[in-house]
Amino acid sequence: MKIKLRDGERLDDLNLKGYQIIQNKDTFCFGMDAVLLSDFAKVKKGEQVLDIGTGTGIIPILLKAKTEGKHFVGLDIQKESVELAKRSVALNNLTEEITMIQGDIKEADQLFTGASFDVITTNPPYMTGNHGLVNPKEQIAIARHEILCTLEDVIKQSSRLLKANGRFYMVHRPFRLAEIFVLMNRYNLEPKRMRLVYPFSDKEPNMVLIEGLHGGKSRITVESPLIVYESQGKYTKEIMDIYGMEYQET
Amino acid sequence: MKIKLRDGERLDDLNLKGYQIIQNKDTFCFGMDAVLLSDFAKVKKGEQVLDIGTGTGIIPILLKAKTEGKHFVGLDIQKESVELAKRSVALNNLTEEITMIQGDIKEADQLFTGASFDVITTNPPYMTGNHGLVNPKEQIAIARHEILCTLEDVIKQSSRLLKANGRFYMVHRPFRLAEIFVLMNRYNLEPKRMRLVYPFSDKEPNMVLIEGLHGGKSRITVESPLIVYESQGKYTKEIMDIYGMEYQET
Repeated sequence: MKIKLRDGERLDDLNLKGYQIIQNKDTFCFGMDAVLLSDFAKVKKGEQVLDIGTGTGIIPILLKAKTEGKHFVGLDIQKESVELAKRSVALNNLTEEITMIQGDIKEADQLFTGASFDVITTNPPYMTGNHGLVNPKEQIAIARHEILCTLEDVIKQSSRLLKANGRFYMVHRPFRLAEIFVLMNRYNLEPKRMRLVYPFSDKEPNMVLIEGLHGGKSRITVESPLIVYESQGKYTKEIMDIYGMEYQET
Repeated sequence: MKIKLRDGERLDDLNLKGYQIIQNKDTFCFGMDAVLLSDFAKVKKGEQVLDIGTGTGIIPILLKAKTEGKHFVGLDIQKESVELAKRSVALNNLTEEITMIQGDIKEADQLFTGASFDVITTNPPYMTGNHGLVNPKEQIAIARHEILCTLEDVIKQSSRLLKANGRFYMVHRPFRLAEIFVLMNRYNLEPKRMRLVYPFSDKEPNMVLIEGLHGGKSRITVESPLIVYESQGKYTKEIMDIYGMEYQET
């Protein structure tokens, strides 16, 4: 399928089933966060999946490529990103399997039936009003800062939308870990699995991957550390594998 | 000072200011957990410190050696361990600086004045009734399983005993991390710093070190991973440093 790119856009290969994705360098680009979350999340055959704050649509597209999930919905509040994501879905001939919807997660009860998803994934805004500078570009700011929805909104609505024993997968920043666990516990999405992502093996982690179980009991498995770089500029074998790229021994 | 050891007891050097400690191989021995907690905890000049569930008394003795804290109290419910710890304190001529008390943390209000400590440390029983086998030896079982006190008892009483802005330091098992954060948040001991201890760099962590701040706001620093072994049987330099032992390059 031929596609005409617009100003600021570029087309990237996902190294997976020939899928490609449109990004816009000025507004919507995905990060390593989304790629690692797509690898961390488990989707079983026939499951219904929702991605909250889908941006470019990278997570539904990667999960469609990697799993046997039945249907994937990407939700975003920004109509420009939903429009971009829809074009990527069409480009990959995935309009049957992936639906992109523009809407506000805080109004989830008007968008979806309660308890209708097996899996929810989310790479939400990391920063509260008090942390970090608010990006002057509004579209980037909305994706990064809790301007239009908070962590509590995402967790509360996920709890309403997940079936009993449904799974919740989130990538976030470690500095909010305590708040994340408190909120997940409050809304009955018990943290069951966690992995910290360390840029280097002797540095502080800069991402955390979390799995919650709707209605689960308290007991969490903390997994081995995920290290990104083995030396300056050289990814570890695990990262190269996740990206579908070939690792070279040095 | 000469000391007469009893059946099952042995005397170990702490590689620190010439301090020694009595352990009993059948009942009260300290683990790496206590040593790592003593390194993780920060005690400032002149501070009052309480160690809950002190066992052999290892944590107050190490903290006395490493910090300028003013006074250290070790509390344990088992009179045999308090008796053992008292003999170690006397052996090191520390009876002025360290007090060992036999008592039940659940009755903290009868033992101590509220808001009277700057720092609390604890290496509490890790296992609930549902996890792991209950050790047939009662003294070991009480130290390892929540038979006489629960995690909630320890956190709730610590909150009562700590001054405003007092610090709480705990070592525990990662599988209880979510529960730990929920309880610390509930009792106003906000998690502020955490370090995971991984036996090997590619394995799941088996300990977690946590600092809480009485009355703190939600924001946690997750530190670099603490790796115990660099290869089978060979400790990393960081572990050797913490134990005060010399590291040999291989």
